[in-house]
Amino acid sequence: MITIDSQRLWHSLMELAELGAYDDTATGLVGVNRQSLTDADAAGRRLLIGWMRDAGLDVTVDELGNIFGLREGLEPALAPVVIGSHIDSVATAGAFDGCLGVLGGLEVVRSLNDADARTRRPLVVAAWTEEEGIRFGTDMLGSAVAAGRLTLEYAYDLVDADGLRLGDELVRIGFKGDRPVRLDPPYAYVECHIEQGPVLAGQGFAVGVVTGVQSISWQHVTLHGRAAHAGTTPTELRVDAGLAAAQVVVHLREMVASGKYGQLRATVGRLQTFPGVPSVVPDRAELTVDLRNPDDALMAAAEADLAAYLEALPVLRVDTRRMARTTMVPFDPKIQEAIATTADELGIPTMRLMSGAGHDAQELAAITPTAMVFVRGQYDGISHNPREYSTPEDCAAGVTVLANTAVRLASS
Amino acid sequence: MITIDSQRLWHSLMELAELGAYDDTATGLVGVNRQSLTDADAAGRRLLIGWMRDAGLDVTVDELGNIFGLREGLEPALAPVVIGSHIDSVATAGAFDGCLGVLGGLEVVRSLNDADARTRRPLVVAAWTEEEGIRFGTDMLGSAVAAGRLTLEYAYDLVDADGLRLGDELVRIGFKGDRPVRLDPPYAYVECHIEQGPVLAGQGFAVGVVTGVQSISWQHVTLHGRAAHAGTTPTELRVDAGLAAAQVVVHLREMVASGKYGQLRATVGRLQTFPGVPSVVPDRAELTVDLRNPDDALMAAAEADLAAYLEALPVLRVDTRRMARTTMVPFDPKIQEAIATTADELGIPTMRLMSGAGHDAQELAAITPTAMVFVRGQYDGISHNPREYSTPEDCAAGVTVLANTAVRLASS
Repeated sequence: MITIDSQRLWHSLMELAELGAYDDTATGLVGVNRQSLTDADAAGRRLLIGWMRDAGLDVTVDELGNIFGLREGLEPALAPVVIGSHIDSVATAGAFDGCLGVLGGLEVVRSLNDADARTRRPLVVAAWTEEEGIRFGTDMLGSAVAAGRLTLEYAYDLVDADGLRLGDELVRIGFKGDRPVRLDPPYAYVECHIEQGPVLAGQGFAVGVVTGVQSISWQHVTLHGRAAHAGTTPTELRVDAGLAAAQVVVHLREMVASGKYGQLRATVGRLQTFPGVPSVVPDRAELTVDLRNPDDALMAAAEADLAAYLEALPVLRVDTRRMARTTMVPFDPKIQEAIATTADELGIPTMRLMSGAGHDAQELAAITPTAMVFVRGQYDGISHNPREYSTPEDCAAGVTVLANTAVRLASS
Repeated sequence: MITIDSQRLWHSLMELAELGAYDDTATGLVGVNRQSLTDADAAGRRLLIGWMRDAGLDVTVDELGNIFGLREGLEPALAPVVIGSHIDSVATAGAFDGCLGVLGGLEVVRSLNDADARTRRPLVVAAWTEEEGIRFGTDMLGSAVAAGRLTLEYAYDLVDADGLRLGDELVRIGFKGDRPVRLDPPYAYVECHIEQGPVLAGQGFAVGVVTGVQSISWQHVTLHGRAAHAGTTPTELRVDAGLAAAQVVVHLREMVASGKYGQLRATVGRLQTFPGVPSVVPDRAELTVDLRNPDDALMAAAEADLAAYLEALPVLRVDTRRMARTTMVPFDPKIQEAIATTADELGIPTMRLMSGAGHDAQELAAITPTAMVFVRGQYDGISHNPREYSTPEDCAAGVTVLANTAVRLASS
């Protein structure tokens, strides 16, 4: 059995968290804002690559900035076992989302080095570009292109809120590599990640075996009304795009509360009215709708409900743009079993659960047997928030399971 | 009786509207965006001053950029009759709001010149700074400081959305004048303005005599929630500032619909969530609330209802900031009578009505007998919108009433 250095893992997590650190006024804590392809992300990438090289890994960067660290196997010709995640973050993040999987993978290699252990198959530690999708609007972008669901051209042409093109930003930070972005199918892919939810904490498990990822639907909605004077325009003559947007937000919450759509979660993360001045009835409102559901049929029904509601709104026009849409992705039973058996042998009790968040693993699942290891989060598993926290012990338990699962798979 | 040149008036309106003109995508029309103290506003001010000087007016600019054009009277020592309005606009404006009152005042002087007519009292045409209040957040600003309700220091220290200080912008565009901003009480103030509502059109009158201005309440509200992951945070554990803001918007509409608050109008012109990304539950939402009511008691009751609703919202904290608050302002009965009698003698039928919008006249009413002349608007009187329109005939009728009312008052 491989034993990891939990202090080394923890210190790496904390050191990476200093890149993009900011004072979060809402929580009074220090948060992390390391959005994809920013200078902070570039600094994080350089720190990671330095650590990879120190660990003896052969580092390559592909055309989309995905980073790969190769540890050669006894039989180099065999397909590798890939372990990875992402180091980009949302604007109000903590230290663990994504980073635990990448630095956990690094810790696996460091521990194998300490033990002078070789594996039959090569081991690859991967860090995927723009997993969060908050800067360029498409999440799991790097892994989706690597696995073939999206094209490189699509990714390059995405623009952020300031109109900056992803392809240009990739060059600007010096991470447009030569390695072809399309990934040869690995032997297996295993990703360790914080749960970002309350299930493991509620059930009393430090580690979970992930059975799959729920369906995700992202839409950008623009409502068109008519600008009018706030003081004189009679209420019945108004076409208020802002009011309509507010009604959509309230309706989504009612959809969730109705129970008709199972375990549906609905979030309007962005809502803005235009022209956005006190004395003018808004002529335009823009909002994003994030729907999640572990059941594809119930997700489709929820989307149909929303579409009908938008259709019936008393506005001049409704424009909807699909930002992301994934069906429920089941993980490979054999990889799940490998994780569960390994944890048993380590004396670490686990439970099975589905992921509420999207992960790079769901993209890799399209080309290779895949599963994930979840680590318990504190404070109801709050995430995408500086309060996000997992204990050093729980992180170590998850990465120990990751390490020994990787060795098991790399030996077969 | 003074006869005005309606074509000259119309051409001046259309020429001024070219400054700040933009293509409005929502309406497909050319709109006007001439916000206070912008370069477009400065260009408008220079055009106006040129016209004033061509008409023989003695032009002075005060410390807040308010513009005055003096036409000397037979008895220069007497307090003048002031006629005016504003030429700044909202971001999505038409050609008439404010401009009709200023260029109407100019047309009064031009017509008196054509007729070689002198008045006993001096006549002053005034253009007030930042009436709309959309750039610096306080409407009727120039007239409020001139009439003594607000201080010059308060005005100078206001900042726009980009953090630009009003006092600095005033210097930048070259309109910080030497004339003391505090205005010596005139003999009377009369303002001609488009109705910006459907009443005159509905009742079939081209011109209305305004009895007063309804109460106006502007508040800026910030709701504080907790950022959380959109995919994993259970609905019952969320503190969603965006949902709370949407509920406020819907509640305000319900307050209006309830009828409990008389002729209350409620508008949320600005609503924005933060951090504003699809996968993060908003930790903050900012909105503006614009309430109007012709009845002070019902306005107070509506504000109390809103305050109680905000108090009960399931958020971490609610911050409210008062942006503007005026009680109902009744206009002077004698000035109303002078307008009505003059219109009768001109054979122009009028009706009395209250203003739904705030106007500089309500500030002047604090220091001098004041009333307003309203001109019918087309398309339900839509305003703060490029569709805003009054016919050349209706504009001429209103300015003819303004001219002869001014002469009547200036002769007494």
